[in-house]
Amino acid sequence: MRATETLIPTLRESPAEAEIPSHVLLLRAGCIRQLASGLYTWLPLGLRVLRRVEAIIREELDARGAREVQMPVVQPAELWRESGRWDVMGPELLRMQDRHERDYAMSPTHEEVVTDLVRRVVDSYHDVPVNLYQIQTKFRDEIRPRFGLLRAREFLMKDGYSFHLTDESFEKTYRDMHDAYAAILERIGLEYRAVEADAGNIGDSESHEFQVLAESGEDLIAYCPDGDYAANVEKARALPPEREQGAPQALERVATPGLRTIAEVSDFLGLEPARCVKTLIVRGSEQPLVALVLRGDHELNETKASRLDAVAAPVTFASDAEVEAAVGCSVGSIGPVDLGLPVYADESAATLVNFVCGANADDVHLTGANWDRDATAETVDVRNVVAGDRSPDGQGALAFARGIEVGHIFKLGTKYSDAMQLALQDGSGGEVSLIMGCYGMGVSRLVAAIVEQCHDADGIVWPSAVAPFDLHVVALDYGRSEDVRRVADAVHDAGVAAGLDVLLDDRGERPGVKFADADLIGIPHRVTVGARGLRDGVVEVRRRAESESSRVPIEEAIERIGSGELP
Amino acid sequence: MRATETLIPTLRESPAEAEIPSHVLLLRAGCIRQLASGLYTWLPLGLRVLRRVEAIIREELDARGAREVQMPVVQPAELWRESGRWDVMGPELLRMQDRHERDYAMSPTHEEVVTDLVRRVVDSYHDVPVNLYQIQTKFRDEIRPRFGLLRAREFLMKDGYSFHLTDESFEKTYRDMHDAYAAILERIGLEYRAVEADAGNIGDSESHEFQVLAESGEDLIAYCPDGDYAANVEKARALPPEREQGAPQALERVATPGLRTIAEVSDFLGLEPARCVKTLIVRGSEQPLVALVLRGDHELNETKASRLDAVAAPVTFASDAEVEAAVGCSVGSIGPVDLGLPVYADESAATLVNFVCGANADDVHLTGANWDRDATAETVDVRNVVAGDRSPDGQGALAFARGIEVGHIFKLGTKYSDAMQLALQDGSGGEVSLIMGCYGMGVSRLVAAIVEQCHDADGIVWPSAVAPFDLHVVALDYGRSEDVRRVADAVHDAGVAAGLDVLLDDRGERPGVKFADADLIGIPHRVTVGARGLRDGVVEVRRRAESESSRVPIEEAIERIGSGELP
Repeated sequence: MRATETLIPTLRESPAEAEIPSHVLLLRAGCIRQLASGLYTWLPLGLRVLRRVEAIIREELDARGAREVQMPVVQPAELWRESGRWDVMGPELLRMQDRHERDYAMSPTHEEVVTDLVRRVVDSYHDVPVNLYQIQTKFRDEIRPRFGLLRAREFLMKDGYSFHLTDESFEKTYRDMHDAYAAILERIGLEYRAVEADAGNIGDSESHEFQVLAESGEDLIAYCPDGDYAANVEKARALPPEREQGAPQALERVATPGLRTIAEVSDFLGLEPARCVKTLIVRGSEQPLVALVLRGDHELNETKASRLDAVAAPVTFASDAEVEAAVGCSVGSIGPVDLGLPVYADESAATLVNFVCGANADDVHLTGANWDRDATAETVDVRNVVAGDRSPDGQGALAFARGIEVGHIFKLGTKYSDAMQLALQDGSGGEVSLIMGCYGMGVSRLVAAIVEQCHDADGIVWPSAVAPFDLHVVALDYGRSEDVRRVADAVHDAGVAAGLDVLLDDRGERPGVKFADADLIGIPHRVTVGARGLRDGVVEVRRRAESESSRVPIEEAIERIGSGELP
Repeated sequence: MRATETLIPTLRESPAEAEIPSHVLLLRAGCIRQLASGLYTWLPLGLRVLRRVEAIIREELDARGAREVQMPVVQPAELWRESGRWDVMGPELLRMQDRHERDYAMSPTHEEVVTDLVRRVVDSYHDVPVNLYQIQTKFRDEIRPRFGLLRAREFLMKDGYSFHLTDESFEKTYRDMHDAYAAILERIGLEYRAVEADAGNIGDSESHEFQVLAESGEDLIAYCPDGDYAANVEKARALPPEREQGAPQALERVATPGLRTIAEVSDFLGLEPARCVKTLIVRGSEQPLVALVLRGDHELNETKASRLDAVAAPVTFASDAEVEAAVGCSVGSIGPVDLGLPVYADESAATLVNFVCGANADDVHLTGANWDRDATAETVDVRNVVAGDRSPDGQGALAFARGIEVGHIFKLGTKYSDAMQLALQDGSGGEVSLIMGCYGMGVSRLVAAIVEQCHDADGIVWPSAVAPFDLHVVALDYGRSEDVRRVADAVHDAGVAAGLDVLLDDRGERPGVKFADADLIGIPHRVTVGARGLRDGVVEVRRRAESESSRVPIEEAIERIGSGELP
């Protein structure tokens, strides 16, 4: 294809709104353009990449028995009311009314629609398992869309759903889909990790995320460099420290006038923050308020806290006034001793002996506090892991990396089947709610993640598996030199005849502009045809990922490309 | 692919809501399922057809230089306000507000978005012409969705847009797109006509529709069997009759007590209805009311009438009370003589000599009326053509056929370019609004149109170019006969190895069910493998489009299919 016959509007400058490399480079390389906040048009170059990613996804899913369907984008509210999500979903669900004033949603996800489909087309246990997927436009009304395709409002997603009579059947498909996702990311050539994750409001608790590693990633992943363990920090666990040894000291009240924070108190007492505990008051699910106790150097993990039965989800902190009313002191002075509220202590805080805590009175702290003797608590896991924590697989210390979530697979259990009465006779007379899995992959997001991982200072470096073209023929002075035109056309035509996707830069731009654009749009292989080289009987070949180029005799280059060999 | 490994939920009975063959058969063959009124899910079999249709469309457009993009489905209202269509579009435009209470539309068409794109990425006359297209989900909030995919609310459409500096450039692309549409329909193997059409509210007046001929078609096409002329009846013209000869008779008042309709009056007077005229009062664009006069045997064409400058669009009939107030008689007694309103006479009515008309008084008609002497009128074309009318190409009489509109290409002129300030320097210092073309093709609608044309009493008869599979291996007693299993698998595997798409019916159904399903889903070629045939060393081969089958030795069948030959 000739550059003059398509639309690749490259930009010299970084658009002001773009903060991260994929957003900057996809705009600058003429792959996408913004229509409005969080809404993007795919231009020809970007769309070619998107289509190649889609094709890889389809191949890997089809090979594992998933079957493609296409469900409507606009969905009747009735189904969302049936599952109970119409009221649970917040303003990120884009709602609308048709001309008859019936409610609809623009789909962020299709659990309801697919469950409704399956209950209408599947009527025998012979028909299951069923594993369906689609690649489709989705909408999520992000409050603050940003990072280009990474947090767009309209986006392309692969969503898949499977239905099973038995756990065993579900587990097999879940593993197959896990394998498919791994195969997709490997074929594209990305560095990624499959990590344990929290399932959010979509389903049950079992889920795995596929995280493409990138500095700009919004997700923090804890992993064990010497083992297999990897988890989103939302979900990541650590082995608790060994229980501390040492004789209990006496509980003492210490005046800490005006000191509130862990840093202030530990500084004043000359102790490590890890010897203090902090006590957080949150709303309970049965009691109005409950207390969560963490070691002073640890942070609360709100996802974990929200999953505690005793805590109202999502976790909500009591106001200063509520704390004053319930405990009689300010927030910074609370402690688990004689608190009068149910206390849940994080595993690490629970191993402490002789710790420091607030005395439930302003300007006073307790030292020498000990569990059981001075305070009782249920032990829970409610903190973020930190670097150096012991990995749950026992293989060493946890480390951290940043990732972009491009896939998420869930065990939904019978949440939707129960709510929407999807059950089958199991063959032995009993009726069984179908067990459901759900498998999402952000297709447009994946394109951005590829750029985040595959770029350099000059532009995108597309992996061959998804590049918009295989070969870029950069013709210098194409309009003025007949020799250049003849050779460039011959190289282009040889590549096309060999089944390669070839882009011929036949524009009337200066060499500097052409080279800069070629680096920017990042096609893996390049042949430069210029009058000077032709006088020496050569063209110049270069790989985008490498800095060296080499000179190849004209006929040899044409012959090699004509046989499908990339320079 | 094995039938047990995909989802093809065929139905024995016709669903009650389905009125036409494509709706009935696509549901029964397990190609689609309704989610809600006008919203359909594509199941695996139907989606395979849809994808093949898409692929043909892409190939023919790409080959003619159109470039694929993907624009957002959700569009900001600002752009629609800029073009003026936000207020013009009725309730068929699905509107919504995001969480910030900004207005959006779910796209029925993308003129505004693409015009906005082009004004932002094209900044030199070197960059035009630009010809972009997308294949995308669209929404039109039909008041009464019906006929399955033919009048769905959510549907898949190919929409394309081109931008030009000169008419000459536009005309070339318009012809190219015309050729592409013809090539697409020919490759699929459909009988169709490209017809002149009214452009509706999308653009200027020049447009062509591509109509797939089918009895159930909603459109009526007038065409000349001996010539090239073809037009949607909305737009179809005819040569007016020769002006009648004969001496003017005296104008006379005839009592017609209680007679109102043309039929009643002509019966009473013993004349053909064609000798009477009917006079319709409609709202005018400048005058409050204007009169349209037609021959008694002709019908008003509202599309044509709406396009008259003097008539307010869309054409609206005056109420009985308004007519009474303006003319002083009831609607059935109006005539052009001394009417006191501007009169527009259809070409055919204008050729009459000595016609009959209402006398603008109840219970009286005029005979011997003549134009110029008794009444003056501007001659216009406002009627529907009828069979036998003279074709505008002079090649004979018009005939009629019914069609399904699957494509529509428009000349938009500078309507959007002017409204949205899309102009370029033309290279000689002047600034020129770009001339725009727009090219739509209903992709999901095309699938329905194919079925309307390609079916018989037993089911669908897919054309090979778009069939969901090439070959259907119907294995009888697959579960019980090892021989059947071995041979059926061998046929299947041989076909797959040869690059064919093969469906193997390995279900535990009775032969009658399998044959009925095979006829229903309509795969072009079939090989039946049964224990009885195998004992004779043969399998049975049949084409779906033909009733005869033949017996072929097992090894020969496997060998032929293995070399890619279809039985």
